[in-house]
Amino acid sequence: MPGYRDVPTSRWDPDAPTDVDEAEAFLRLFHDENDDSRNLLPRLAAVRAEIAATGTYTHTRAELTFGARVAWRNSSRCIGRLYWRSLRLLDRRDVHSADGIYSSLVEHLCTATNNGNIRPTITVFPPARPGERYARIWNEQLIRYAGHRRSDGSVVGDPRYVDFTATVTAMGWIGKGSAFDILPLVIDTPADGPRLFDLPEHAVSEVHLTHPEHPWFANLDLRWHVVPAISHMRLTIGGIHYPCAPFNGWYLGAEIGARNLADLDRYNMLLVVAENLGLDTSTDVTLWRDRALVELNIAVLHSFTAAGMRISDHHTEAHLFCTHLEREARLGRPVPTDWTWIVPPLSGSTTPVFHRYYHEADLRPNFYLDPEARA
Amino acid sequence: MPGYRDVPTSRWDPDAPTDVDEAEAFLRLFHDENDDSRNLLPRLAAVRAEIAATGTYTHTRAELTFGARVAWRNSSRCIGRLYWRSLRLLDRRDVHSADGIYSSLVEHLCTATNNGNIRPTITVFPPARPGERYARIWNEQLIRYAGHRRSDGSVVGDPRYVDFTATVTAMGWIGKGSAFDILPLVIDTPADGPRLFDLPEHAVSEVHLTHPEHPWFANLDLRWHVVPAISHMRLTIGGIHYPCAPFNGWYLGAEIGARNLADLDRYNMLLVVAENLGLDTSTDVTLWRDRALVELNIAVLHSFTAAGMRISDHHTEAHLFCTHLEREARLGRPVPTDWTWIVPPLSGSTTPVFHRYYHEADLRPNFYLDPEARA
Ligand code: HEM
Ligand code: HEM
Repeated sequence: MPGYRDVPTSRWDPDAPTDVDEAEAFLRLFHDENDDSRNLLPRLAAVRAEIAATGTYTHTRAELTFGARVAWRNSSRCIGRLYWRSLRLLDRRDVHSADGIYSSLVEHLCTATNNGNIRPTITVFPPARPGERYARIWNEQLIRYAGHRRSDGSVVGDPRYVDFTATVTAMGWIGKGSAFDILPLVIDTPADGPRLFDLPEHAVSEVHLTHPEHPWFANLDLRWHVVPAISHMRLTIGGIHYPCAPFNGWYLGAEIGARNLADLDRYNMLLVVAENLGLDTSTDVTLWRDRALVELNIAVLHSFTAAGMRISDHHTEAHLFCTHLEREARLGRPVPTDWTWIVPPLSGSTTPVFHRYYHEADLRPNFYLDPEARA
Repeated sequence: MPGYRDVPTSRWDPDAPTDVDEAEAFLRLFHDENDDSRNLLPRLAAVRAEIAATGTYTHTRAELTFGARVAWRNSSRCIGRLYWRSLRLLDRRDVHSADGIYSSLVEHLCTATNNGNIRPTITVFPPARPGERYARIWNEQLIRYAGHRRSDGSVVGDPRYVDFTATVTAMGWIGKGSAFDILPLVIDTPADGPRLFDLPEHAVSEVHLTHPEHPWFANLDLRWHVVPAISHMRLTIGGIHYPCAPFNGWYLGAEIGARNLADLDRYNMLLVVAENLGLDTSTDVTLWRDRALVELNIAVLHSFTAAGMRISDHHTEAHLFCTHLEREARLGRPVPTDWTWIVPPLSGSTTPVFHRYYHEADLRPNFYLDPEARA
């Protein structure tokens, strides 16, 4: 993970009672931003009574939708926040079983993929009730590729998921052993414990990567999935915690081209691409890494676009983020932002987000990564 | 300026007496790191007596050399710190006149350039005495190019220095009107006030930029100076302030290729380079900026190297910085580091400095930029 700082947010205590102050702060925000101050006091009274009686409270559908959207708006590491109001909610607070969660996740992927016209979507499963056990998805993202460790120590697939792959293999999963085996979901419910589920083919769109100018690129047999859907973060709204609330946007090309396929501890393709480009890789000073990096990113953007799958380049998205900053400033709202995540991993200074300072803050609602949810 | 934070360091008060605690902390550090604890107490007593009698104290040559080196070591935005022990000191604490400062600066540039085998060097002029006026160089760097504003609003040269160019023009300087006119020095002494000095040709090495593969690149008539010498920062050592203490290293290629020649508000060459490369600049998604950026940086590194002028690429220097981090860790010393400045402005994630967290701190000795010294 990049970043200058391993954000030390206060740790979540699943046994703690629902925080009344947080509930109140959120309800004020909700009524305030939705021009509905008339209904604030009765709602506050009802929520206080519900917490007093049951230890927690239940969000209305409107509150949940708004809360999830604001959690996105407050995600200081996300460059895609201009679209925060467009987040679609799949309300699955009535789904408790592993089978039910599985079919909801398949539905999430299908409706979010939308034949390539990707829709930012969040599925919200039941909140954690204070002191009770709750369901959780072990996967970092709904779609990711396995990493198979060979006997010589090398890895086929995504090295980031070698441990996860070993775990699911020990649980009985059998991969094909290819470089792009889709990992199974591990859905962990209080009733059943962790259970494996394979995603059906129709739920997973992928793009085979080609380069607009270099035919050999297709022979590298690189591919990537179309929908990035983070599934291990906890959504917090007004003192309520949703540990199972996977969400997706569309890809920023650089996530694939500059990180997933390029990082030394991921698919590490820069040397192979550089060699195919005929570059002199004997010394750093030829900038062969930089050239290979750009061509790899061109291939990602080109292939997704040619396949009709929505993707953004870092220049476009950086400009849109600046539009977001201006809009929010006009509304008098701070935009908490982490420079080290917002500036793209390639060509940083060619994007406008590089040349400024940001407000740093931890606002709620938000998404958090709990230590026990880290891969 | 990049960076997530406009470091709010305590403001310098030139009228305040020399801080005895800072003097003591520095002298302890000096004796400690130089295995000279025997002489600490007598030196402390002498310095305390000197401050009591005169309001300030005088560094020995060894203290000054060590202090300047540690100021470099503590510069959290500098990636070149592996070499901190190699800093050469030109002790000019006896030079007060504008003419004397000028000839010392010319000497600095010549000995630092060293025919291309650049030597990190600092020239230290007299410290500020509490309550007294002091000499200062107005220029941000000893060598920089003028920015001439045309009547149609466009700029010939470096737009960053349009105001500075207007100021020196009003003082009587006459530029050639080219894109690369070397700005005159403005040396401001208590005795004479600000005076203009032109640098002699032999003190300024420049490189004409060519590209190893594209002959047309030479026709862009781009060039850059070989020595980056920052001249507007204040060196602070043990409570003593040296407002006039220009220092230089060698260039990291990206400073020229990804910032000075590429930034929209500097020479802004990416579009021109992209057009010459025949790239499709009609849409962001072709990554024409990224391709042009890499070729521009290749040209910089190639041209300097071909001319026998020392320069570093960001991959090499990032690795050396990681060596520095390890070395300092073994010695038990923190390395205050600003992620947003250390990660290079292009291909960030391909360098090892991207993938980690850093210690953030404001340690002394150090270099500071006073508000009144900003361009
Ligand atoms: C609509 C298109 C979207 C784009 C282009 C986008 C882009 C990005 C990018 C590039 C990152 C950095 C990822 C990395 O470096 O690993 C990021 C992080 C993040 N985004 Fe978005 N995003 C989008 C939608 C969303 C949505 C819908 C949500 C939530 C509802 C969201 C919440 C987040 C969060 C919480 C992070 C930080 C993840 C972490 O800490 O690991 N984003 N986004
Ligand atoms: C030896 C080769 C050196 C290299 C390759 C190097 C590299 C760099 C780079 C790339 C930056 C960032 C510049 C920017 O983005 O504007 C920087 C900043 C800095 N360096 Fe170095 N440096 C070197 C020598 C030195 C020396 C000799 C000193 C002082 C004695 C020094 C002190 C600093 C300071 C104070 C900054 C921050 C400047 C500011 O805040 O504007 N560096 N260096």
